[in-house]
Amino acid sequence: MQGAVLHAPRDIRVEQRDDPKIKQPTDAVIRVAATCVCGSDLWPYRGIEPVDGPAPMGHEYVGVVEEVGSDVRGIRPGQFVVGSFFASDNTCAICQAGYQSRCVHGEPMGAIGTQAQYARVPLADGTLVATPEVPGDDLVPSLLAASDVLGTGWFGAVAADVKPGKTVAVVGDGAVGLLAVLAARQLGAKQVIAVSRHEPRQKLARVFGATDIITERGDDGAARVRELTGGLGAHSVIEAVGTQESMMQAISSARPGGHVGYVGVSHDVQLPGQELFFREVHLHGGPAPVRRFLPELIRLICERAIDPGKVFDLTLPLDQAAEGYRAMDERRAVKALLKP
Amino acid sequence: MQGAVLHAPRDIRVEQRDDPKIKQPTDAVIRVAATCVCGSDLWPYRGIEPVDGPAPMGHEYVGVVEEVGSDVRGIRPGQFVVGSFFASDNTCAICQAGYQSRCVHGEPMGAIGTQAQYARVPLADGTLVATPEVPGDDLVPSLLAASDVLGTGWFGAVAADVKPGKTVAVVGDGAVGLLAVLAARQLGAKQVIAVSRHEPRQKLARVFGATDIITERGDDGAARVRELTGGLGAHSVIEAVGTQESMMQAISSARPGGHVGYVGVSHDVQLPGQELFFREVHLHGGPAPVRRFLPELIRLICERAIDPGKVFDLTLPLDQAAEGYRAMDERRAVKALLKP
Repeated sequence: MQGAVLHAPRDIRVEQRDDPKIKQPTDAVIRVAATCVCGSDLWPYRGIEPVDGPAPMGHEYVGVVEEVGSDVRGIRPGQFVVGSFFASDNTCAICQAGYQSRCVHGEPMGAIGTQAQYARVPLADGTLVATPEVPGDDLVPSLLAASDVLGTGWFGAVAADVKPGKTVAVVGDGAVGLLAVLAARQLGAKQVIAVSRHEPRQKLARVFGATDIITERGDDGAARVRELTGGLGAHSVIEAVGTQESMMQAISSARPGGHVGYVGVSHDVQLPGQELFFREVHLHGGPAPVRRFLPELIRLICERAIDPGKVFDLTLPLDQAAEGYRAMDERRAVKALLKP
Repeated sequence: MQGAVLHAPRDIRVEQRDDPKIKQPTDAVIRVAATCVCGSDLWPYRGIEPVDGPAPMGHEYVGVVEEVGSDVRGIRPGQFVVGSFFASDNTCAICQAGYQSRCVHGEPMGAIGTQAQYARVPLADGTLVATPEVPGDDLVPSLLAASDVLGTGWFGAVAADVKPGKTVAVVGDGAVGLLAVLAARQLGAKQVIAVSRHEPRQKLARVFGATDIITERGDDGAARVRELTGGLGAHSVIEAVGTQESMMQAISSARPGGHVGYVGVSHDVQLPGQELFFREVHLHGGPAPVRRFLPELIRLICERAIDPGKVFDLTLPLDQAAEGYRAMDERRAVKALLKP
């Protein structure tokens, strides 16, 4: 099969890879209907995370089940399925508590590489959620978004304790940040302040329900959020970048007793304990347990209550994956969908 | 009046101070029935926090109202009252959300100095809670504990989301840590693992409801907690020290999706963002909003359901405050009560 492989920073190639096979009786193999490039793929692409020899890329996927292992009970060939970037058994104590991204038997799909024609999905019964029926093509981008960026933005909003009537700020205007705006409105926030300097992203934030757009960063950004929230700071802040500046902006934008949900993958972040202590916010985040939210997100998408697929502003055939990476790296695209 | 004043590291003197007066119509003046030395008083005492000229000391207090300002409505002379180390209006949006320690009009009692015969209490209606009747002398230590260490340990347990049936670890065997053990049991925890190497403190932890005592620190301590909790880590961890090691031990002792409540005042702590991200715990803490819990704590104490006053293992007249500081500094005493 064809699949995207990162050989060195900025050297992504679509090349022949071995066809995946059932390795464990709990595996499934799916034919990938759509996959995409993640903001987190850009870290190794840019060489900020080390690249250790050729690495298959991609961890977002929707597709049709081709084959299942002998122990798979709930998933069958022909079903259209959505999975998360962490395979999980969905039965261990950690999964049952809603943290499938930290499943005791979990496996990262990124190591498998879903920017490909086919993919092996471990722990298929726990990992995959089937759609009620095979969806029309128009729903595929939104279902693909549920696989990571929507689920991650949603987790950010839940981790930030977004509730009806609350004020929310979102730091980060990538696909996750934009979909965190959507999640916050779906969860009932009355005010959603998006931080963005990029006009097309500002527009999309408005489409997803942002009530205010601010362009200030760092301490100025936090001061602006306080101004917009009666001097107190937001009840809930979602951080979707992962840098020192964005984390501190998020923490400073929340009111005392407020909640910061952080989903940007942390890079070179050190949180000063004393400032954190006196800010007195709740802090929660990490790799999103997308599986927790998939049934609800699939329902909302299939009922056309939400349209998160709008974050894909570039669609390419899989063999042009390199252009997808370049466009996102240069911020010409919010998010690139790849069609195998 | 007589009051304790810190002149330089380890130079604490009980000397003549001005009698407090009503300054604002919302003030009260109380005759202090009992006060005490806090673990956090040891930071400037040891010179770890800078001492900027003579500073009145103390922020824990119970006493009898002597006089109230013209705007005070709910508190009247003769009442026995308990207050927290932060004066708070208890009406602003932050107070109403339960964060009286970050009240928009808040004032730290430490700047006033309650290790004295009398104290001015700002925002008396919001700050002070009267006991149902003037308590017997035997209840005074427990009510004094409610003023800070019990309220702080309780907040640690609430911030760590302690709930019936949960597993809890407590890092720190000072008065706050020991009372966090009590709080965790009161809140229904089925297992409470206390970290302590000091035999008298281990005993007190058992009295307060610890089910397990461990002596390991750092990564070894976290590994031991995982061993005792089915390999997963505790649901809830309370941090009551404030150092880099104790914070990281607490974070590493919690299971993914678990909760860390931290109430040790942070000193030179830097939390590594990436580790925090992948630990995926909830983190919440800061100066405890003791006022939130005072009515409930006073009720439990007056009904003799809890006896937090046991943390006072040294009682001295106020004029021997220096010995109280020395005994706590040298860990000869868990906590010193001072009688004006």
